[in-house]
Amino acid sequence: MAETYSIGVDLGGTNLRVAAYEGGREFLETIVLPTRLNLGRDQVVRDMCDAVRALGARDFGHRRLAGIAVGSPGPLELPAGILRNLPNFPGWDGFNLKSAIATGLGCDIVLENDANLAAFAEQRLGAGTKYGVSDLCVITLGTGVGNGLVLNGKIWDGANGMAGEAGHMVVQAEERSRCGCGGYGCLEQYASATAVIRMARESLGDAVSTAHEVAMLARSGSELARNIFDTAGRALAIALTGLINTLNLPLYLLGGGVCEAWDLLSCPMFRELERRSYVYRLTKPEVLEPIHLLEGKTYVLKAELGALAGLLGACVAGLEARLPPATLGKEILGHQ
Amino acid sequence: MAETYSIGVDLGGTNLRVAAYEGGREFLETIVLPTRLNLGRDQVVRDMCDAVRALGARDFGHRRLAGIAVGSPGPLELPAGILRNLPNFPGWDGFNLKSAIATGLGCDIVLENDANLAAFAEQRLGAGTKYGVSDLCVITLGTGVGNGLVLNGKIWDGANGMAGEAGHMVVQAEERSRCGCGGYGCLEQYASATAVIRMARESLGDAVSTAHEVAMLARSGSELARNIFDTAGRALAIALTGLINTLNLPLYLLGGGVCEAWDLLSCPMFRELERRSYVYRLTKPEVLEPIHLLEGKTYVLKAELGALAGLLGACVAGLEARLPPATLGKEILGHQ
Repeated sequence: MAETYSIGVDLGGTNLRVAAYEGGREFLETIVLPTRLNLGRDQVVRDMCDAVRALGARDFGHRRLAGIAVGSPGPLELPAGILRNLPNFPGWDGFNLKSAIATGLGCDIVLENDANLAAFAEQRLGAGTKYGVSDLCVITLGTGVGNGLVLNGKIWDGANGMAGEAGHMVVQAEERSRCGCGGYGCLEQYASATAVIRMARESLGDAVSTAHEVAMLARSGSELARNIFDTAGRALAIALTGLINTLNLPLYLLGGGVCEAWDLLSCPMFRELERRSYVYRLTKPEVLEPIHLLEGKTYVLKAELGALAGLLGACVAGLEARLPPATLGKEILGHQ
Repeated sequence: MAETYSIGVDLGGTNLRVAAYEGGREFLETIVLPTRLNLGRDQVVRDMCDAVRALGARDFGHRRLAGIAVGSPGPLELPAGILRNLPNFPGWDGFNLKSAIATGLGCDIVLENDANLAAFAEQRLGAGTKYGVSDLCVITLGTGVGNGLVLNGKIWDGANGMAGEAGHMVVQAEERSRCGCGGYGCLEQYASATAVIRMARESLGDAVSTAHEVAMLARSGSELARNIFDTAGRALAIALTGLINTLNLPLYLLGGGVCEAWDLLSCPMFRELERRSYVYRLTKPEVLEPIHLLEGKTYVLKAELGALAGLLGACVAGLEARLPPATLGKEILGHQ
């Protein structure tokens, strides 16, 4: 049997990343383009399809294309592939992205939520492989708070693709200001980079513009800055209490820019988690950063893969898609 | 092939229920005993084994015993079968209930958390079957708040049997009084029958002694009593927001004594759920009490099975256990 490769796409609000992939943590080749949202969704899909075709036309040692998978921000209705109300994609609400791409390429594709693909990558290539775990939850503290669940080695999409929105678990019932999702008191309002910056501006003034700067201030002794990571860590612990007490997974991974302040975030988080979650208290490991995981324990660790986790996850999903080779071969490789 | 039956056990704090079962929602025969906790755990296990043997010695039309399953209050370490800190079972912490019963009976048994078995029964015999759903979550508002998850038609035990503790999701971060689990601000502190009675005594005085009485007061016009179900309903909505936004299941079922006040509980719950959960807003059905479920919608309904759901679940789990017939036949049926 010929060796295979896949093409993965990560559709971000700023960049469109397309990669050819045959396994491991590296790509065969990548194309990075700006996401030209100002030119409309059809142009963005055309740009994406052009980049996929460009990679499909390359000769990766005669490997056969196993599949193409695209990661998109959610909420996303699956399996249909319809986008719902993406905050940074005006005019895309109700757009059937999956069929638009499939039509553009002339072949079936896999479409998934980008945060779910990042979790999938962690399971297949990151902490999941390292520790031999097939069930895990990833929470990514970036501009927003992303989340993905992998159960029994598979992405948990839920009934219609909207699972994995732990960023919008309620952690502060009394919150009066509104979250981007329309709710109140969501995790994202306390633990995203956006929230860290907002809280810093409220208490420290306008000079601060990144979560990294807030962390630097905290490390250099600012108690106000330190309090912000306390708040973020405690909010995270309240959401984790829900996820641990209901799902009892062996592994919860935290990633994203805010986690670079792990030294500031983790102590208040673990303290609050012990206070809140009796399942965590009963299953807490003695060693928080272990060489291998002990059975029956609950680990909360930093994610292994960085900002490209979503793209890697798309690539792995493409590799495992195993679409009919004739379709892909003819349509992608033949019709350039 | 001979027809089969099973024996299910529900180990409660007050009663020990043992039933023979061949399918459907009815039992072939049941034995109900007081749980003699005052005589110690060994006596309770002996009582249980005696009752199982008594049913095993009966002739149910020459049916073959397919398996025995026992439901116990949690937390419960699975698959080992060790009890951890049951609030109403003093002296049982660390007790290997599974091996004690297996030794007592001379055969393998299935041991599960009782709330998980109640959810399993709902999936196999109740709303799951009625609506053709293999993923569901059951929350039971009784003395405590029980919870079970069935994913892909199977009980979700988690890494070591401690999944399904949604009663201890945090719904009120600022709560200062402590939950029975040792945490603060858990769902159980607002939506259990115990919580309803506690809140009623705080606002209405000592005359009230059941959740039913509080409901009667609310229906007869007491605003203070009505506020209590508002609080319970909103707390439930905050926990459901977490469960819906992370798991995106098609069906969430609410059972237990407090749900008899569905007329008082459901309006504030649905109102708060819409306010909090954007996944619910995107997937909310037009008809809240449907004949059949529409795909892609999220339903929150009353559970179909009553107080015997746990025992029914144990019976079904026993029937599906398919343990080696020789073992069971010889040990149970032969050695009376």
